[in-house]
Amino acid sequence: MSPEPIPLRAPGRRADRARQVADVLRQQIHAGYFDQALSSEQELAAEFAVSRNTVRDALALLKDEGLIERAPKIGTHVARRKYDHGLDALLGLKETLRGHGDVRNEVRAARPVIPPPAVARKLLLEPGQPAVYIERLRYLGDLPLSLDLTYLVPDIGDEVIARDLETNDIFALIEQIGGGPLGSADLALEAITADAHSAMTLQMPEGGALLLLERLTKLEDGRPVDLEYIRMRGDRITMRGSLIRPPERTDWRLT
Amino acid sequence: MSPEPIPLRAPGRRADRARQVADVLRQQIHAGYFDQALSSEQELAAEFAVSRNTVRDALALLKDEGLIERAPKIGTHVARRKYDHGLDALLGLKETLRGHGDVRNEVRAARPVIPPPAVARKLLLEPGQPAVYIERLRYLGDLPLSLDLTYLVPDIGDEVIARDLETNDIFALIEQIGGGPLGSADLALEAITADAHSAMTLQMPEGGALLLLERLTKLEDGRPVDLEYIRMRGDRITMRGSLIRPPERTDWRLT
Repeated sequence: MSPEPIPLRAPGRRADRARQVADVLRQQIHAGYFDQALSSEQELAAEFAVSRNTVRDALALLKDEGLIERAPKIGTHVARRKYDHGLDALLGLKETLRGHGDVRNEVRAARPVIPPPAVARKLLLEPGQPAVYIERLRYLGDLPLSLDLTYLVPDIGDEVIARDLETNDIFALIEQIGGGPLGSADLALEAITADAHSAMTLQMPEGGALLLLERLTKLEDGRPVDLEYIRMRGDRITMRGSLIRPPERTDWRLT
Repeated sequence: MSPEPIPLRAPGRRADRARQVADVLRQQIHAGYFDQALSSEQELAAEFAVSRNTVRDALALLKDEGLIERAPKIGTHVARRKYDHGLDALLGLKETLRGHGDVRNEVRAARPVIPPPAVARKLLLEPGQPAVYIERLRYLGDLPLSLDLTYLVPDIGDEVIARDLETNDIFALIEQIGGGPLGSADLALEAITADAHSAMTLQMPEGGALLLLERLTKLEDGRPVDLEYIRMRGDRITMRGSLIRPPERTDWRLT
């Protein structure tokens, strides 16, 4: 079953090969392999054993993603650093990006609301009971990273909006005001394209890719207190984590 | 700090309100709340305490995401069921979607290659050592869900491509051929837009949103054996999981 190995270039269509090259380059860019300037087309063609046309196609894909910039005579540069957000532990953005710079929040709303029934149900509120709504545009340095819509249960939310929302994670505020330590969160992560208004707000191209995170966070005692809808710029955030293979389904899980 | 609660409608721009409504509706659609037909504009306007114009804007956002279809006289319908892929445990697509239908793989490539150096490094292969490359378009029923590019270490890959790749998860094949039980995987999850060729292959609109999963899977002994680049259609897959709040940073982690 092991014929002579064939370089990637041999079979397959050029678009397929470009995708293969782009995926590996993307990973190298995120890992900081290229610092600023990418290798030349010629060097990349040799490294991947593909034609220069295929390299050009691969670079065009990464350019369309906003990951690199290309200019005649100047060459190919990394356009934007991406930041890792953890899928292993429940952390706020400021905690996550500690060491990368200051996270600053532009507070677009912070007020009591009567939440939609579907939100009330998730937060175990009675119909008509108020919640607190907070909307923040979150920056790292000068560039927006995410637009966060947050619904808090009223006892906690009323105290949270009395605090400094511009420089603090809501998670930290909930724990500070004695809401008790957070316990866990349920996440749903989707890819969507940015509508015109979200794109304008996040200072990104309309139609660009967003990671949409819906997160319901609970206190240690299991009470849901915080429901969020977070739009992260696809060109600025990568979610990272690790997974364990579960035991055989016929086994009982012992841990 | 607790003024009279105000319905969502009161302050804020219409585009902001439409986003708020769309986010909650999206969650309800995924949860199967609407079965097929959505409530009327009038009912939704009452439920969310917003104007019908805002409801229309919210529905337009969801239509652009491919989630709903709208037609005069017919009303608003759920266009496409989304499926959950787990972020809690390391499972193949077929295992994950057990109960939802048959996963079928169109095998676009399955052959030895000399992998790019960056791939070889991740799989702990010597430069120039062959790997096995597999490319699959994965269907649930008639619709493509994902396009998967897989690099396997040669000892395992040679045996995997001798098996039935059309109906089996690669994870299951690795374990069947005695590569040993899988242990864990490192994940990176990004949102990107679909280029023309990927979109055509996945039968989705060009520029639509993709979840791009890079996954390096290791055997129980820690040896990396399987590096994958998986493009999942954003309108068909949601990644779901839960996270635990880590202990205080000043504490030692005891588990």
